[in-house]
Amino acid sequence: MTQGADPLVEGLTGGERLPLARLLTRIENGDPTVRSSLPALLAAGRGGHVVGVTGPPGSGKSTLVNALIGEWRRRGRRVGILAVDPSSPYTRGAILGDRIRMMEHAADRDVFMRSMASRGELGGIAVTTWLAAAALDVAGYDPILIETVGAGQSEVEIARLAETTVVVEAPEMGDEVQAIKAGLLEVADIVAVNKGDRPGADRTARQLRAMLSTAGGRVERSPPRVMVTTATTGEGVGPLADAIEAHREVARTAIAAGERARHQLHRAVSELAWRRAATRDDFSDIVEGVAGRTLDPLTGADRLLPE
Amino acid sequence: MTQGADPLVEGLTGGERLPLARLLTRIENGDPTVRSSLPALLAAGRGGHVVGVTGPPGSGKSTLVNALIGEWRRRGRRVGILAVDPSSPYTRGAILGDRIRMMEHAADRDVFMRSMASRGELGGIAVTTWLAAAALDVAGYDPILIETVGAGQSEVEIARLAETTVVVEAPEMGDEVQAIKAGLLEVADIVAVNKGDRPGADRTARQLRAMLSTAGGRVERSPPRVMVTTATTGEGVGPLADAIEAHREVARTAIAAGERARHQLHRAVSELAWRRAATRDDFSDIVEGVAGRTLDPLTGADRLLPE
Repeated sequence: MTQGADPLVEGLTGGERLPLARLLTRIENGDPTVRSSLPALLAAGRGGHVVGVTGPPGSGKSTLVNALIGEWRRRGRRVGILAVDPSSPYTRGAILGDRIRMMEHAADRDVFMRSMASRGELGGIAVTTWLAAAALDVAGYDPILIETVGAGQSEVEIARLAETTVVVEAPEMGDEVQAIKAGLLEVADIVAVNKGDRPGADRTARQLRAMLSTAGGRVERSPPRVMVTTATTGEGVGPLADAIEAHREVARTAIAAGERARHQLHRAVSELAWRRAATRDDFSDIVEGVAGRTLDPLTGADRLLPE
Repeated sequence: MTQGADPLVEGLTGGERLPLARLLTRIENGDPTVRSSLPALLAAGRGGHVVGVTGPPGSGKSTLVNALIGEWRRRGRRVGILAVDPSSPYTRGAILGDRIRMMEHAADRDVFMRSMASRGELGGIAVTTWLAAAALDVAGYDPILIETVGAGQSEVEIARLAETTVVVEAPEMGDEVQAIKAGLLEVADIVAVNKGDRPGADRTARQLRAMLSTAGGRVERSPPRVMVTTATTGEGVGPLADAIEAHREVARTAIAAGERARHQLHRAVSELAWRRAATRDDFSDIVEGVAGRTLDPLTGADRLLPE
């Protein structure tokens, strides 16, 4: 290993923003030359805490993220933020709004904020975000926040990448919404019921605690901690930052790290296998066979994969 | 090809329910011996229309499905229903409720209803459901409804499998919920705003039409049709059945069939590649390497895939 000699990694550890920004662009664009620097990047890791923050529009997530950044800055931490955009064309407005609010910290040299599109040519969005987080880690940011908008597939993907995942809810979003968000709650390590100054916040927190403590099939994890925050006044933000910090050790047990690694590998293997399949000479024939129902997808997949 | 001679397929075409039920159990359990019957199953296909119906709890989806079944029965159709359970432990209650309501048609020999768990050992839930739908097709059901609960990852997966996808909404579910459901709307061919007797139903339909017509990046598809239904009174159910029927031809263009085939193959290739990877001797070492950050997930995936 000659990791110190890798120019890409040296650029990051110098603390300058430009080399980091350039590397993130290369990662996002799927630049294949990034691959050769990965061993050096991993070796130079500083163990920054990767924290996912997710939750539906309307939960006040962006305001809470801003309040958390402020809290960590007061504690002397350098904060990295990756804002991952889901690919849906319908939610772009919401994301633009988030970006504008984020600019509150734009002048702070110790806050690095970057939006990532959810394509991820290097092996899916999970792998792209993983690489970007590794780059922020080498650049000395800790915590590294991964923020997503929405409550869909990509959000759960991203949440499973973070060491500690905070799901932001608002009070009284109704039973229907609770059920919709169940997928998100399953990946939560901490649930923040935000807008805590609204009526019903404590009741929502109690309901969530009851719901999360009785959910079956999760023997391997303790129920997520449910906290009430009011991002606009800062109420509860300090305790939330403490809870995130306290979860760092829990997230670093061998079992938890192994679970995350399996998930990463699953995503990367799936993407890589599909990309290779799509470059085969017989790919179009096999697609046509399945489309024309002369071939079933299982047999088609068998043909597309090398033995 | 000796498809007529395949005993599994012969059992289905005889019109008996028991051979079909047994085959679905084998498909659900991932019985590998099913594979050898797939060419015969495909060859015996009758071209039944595969219709996905999805939507969040609270939209009245189950009542609407019941009303649609009634409408199709009056039109002399034999209706197959696959109810796909998402894996979330949090939503089981809702699904049980759906099942109970479904029993309205339990005595009708020309309605075949089956719940499928979302594990799908034969290549993911998408492939399992595809195979089950193919079996219902050979058994002479048309349409074949694929019903899902919730608004998450598996619902979008399943929706992409159907030829025609109906997304059920309720009026006035609020802006927050609209954004959450954006992922579902992206896969909709028809949107049914159910509970049409509630105030605001027409306004919700207008809002959805405006939102769906201006959404960018979808040049390849026309905007989904938005209809208002009241499942409890039957209002709008006939026109909805007509709209579904009218979409059958649209869904069977070569482009649409090719898109579905690519999606199926993507899911099948991903699952198969991962399953093979997980049986390799070096699998645990590679997981440990990624968990311990001595290996990045891309390089790990490279090692797990044969050249």
